[in-house]
Amino acid sequence: MTGRRSDARRNHTHILAVAEAEVAAQGAQASLERIARIAGVGSATVRRHFPTRKALLEAVFKQRVHDLCDRAHTLSGEHDSRSALVQWLRELLAYSLAARGLADVLSYEPLGKEATPDSCAPAIGAAGAVLLRKAIDDRTVRPDITIDDLLVLIVGIALATENHADPATQADRAFRLAVAGFGADGT
Amino acid sequence: MTGRRSDARRNHTHILAVAEAEVAAQGAQASLERIARIAGVGSATVRRHFPTRKALLEAVFKQRVHDLCDRAHTLSGEHDSRSALVQWLRELLAYSLAARGLADVLSYEPLGKEATPDSCAPAIGAAGAVLLRKAIDDRTVRPDITIDDLLVLIVGIALATENHADPATQADRAFRLAVAGFGADGT
Repeated sequence: MTGRRSDARRNHTHILAVAEAEVAAQGAQASLERIARIAGVGSATVRRHFPTRKALLEAVFKQRVHDLCDRAHTLSGEHDSRSALVQWLRELLAYSLAARGLADVLSYEPLGKEATPDSCAPAIGAAGAVLLRKAIDDRTVRPDITIDDLLVLIVGIALATENHADPATQADRAFRLAVAGFGADGT
Repeated sequence: MTGRRSDARRNHTHILAVAEAEVAAQGAQASLERIARIAGVGSATVRRHFPTRKALLEAVFKQRVHDLCDRAHTLSGEHDSRSALVQWLRELLAYSLAARGLADVLSYEPLGKEATPDSCAPAIGAAGAVLLRKAIDDRTVRPDITIDDLLVLIVGIALATENHADPATQADRAFRLAVAGFGADGT
């Protein structure tokens, strides 16, 4: 059993490494058959390790999600709670633009749906909600905004600019426009 | 030749009707092979009529795009240029939520890219730009906003809420937040 288990672990790590490269190149629609072929295993083996595309993508983005949660924790210590929130959202957008497929994963599983231990959106949502709460308490952001509203805007901007000639510039313009609507006093 | 031509036209109409039903059910990722199978033709025939997925989707959404352009023309006669713009954007969002795949098509081809006669985004962009220009001239909307910025936000909100439990409600919340950032005076 030990041999088989360590084989399975090696397979898991190997498939994941191939998947990371493929998702970086092709986005969330990366072909599972192609991942299996490059990894030198059957499609059934890929499915055993990652039963759904969502499960595979979550594994691929686990480290990035972890980093974003860390950043939220660090930024929550900043004095200016509105800048801290905006800065974190800007980093989430930058990650989503750089890591093709992260926005897809976040749009697959809005907050409130049942979370698995590796679920991306609930982890991101919980991390961002702390920053939003602080900004609302400081009256620097409108009190009726929810973290879901903010994730929809960020994820949406990333998805809608993916095919633009210069995604980062267009995304930044839309981001500034969206942020302009956050103000507690409407500014 | 006449017989072949009218055959081709019948094929075109038939494939398009099947495609409309499939895209309504499955979204922009509807299987071209499945469309060919249901239409009772080979994949090569589908490709001859619609060389790319984008070409097929543009044909599917042609009427909706035409309707949206008409609405922009009607709304441009309204006295309140800001409400006219916001109303049109709201209708674009509603269409995008109702017609799965329209937001994908709009995100495939941002303005500025080369347009084919049936291209959706340039037509939508040109129609919306008239309303935006009027609102900016009336100083009811910030002068630095472009129609691309607005399309990114609307298309993004539609894409990001597609998998939500209640897309219309969540999309409306994000829409109001985005619109709050339009004000010429920051309100």
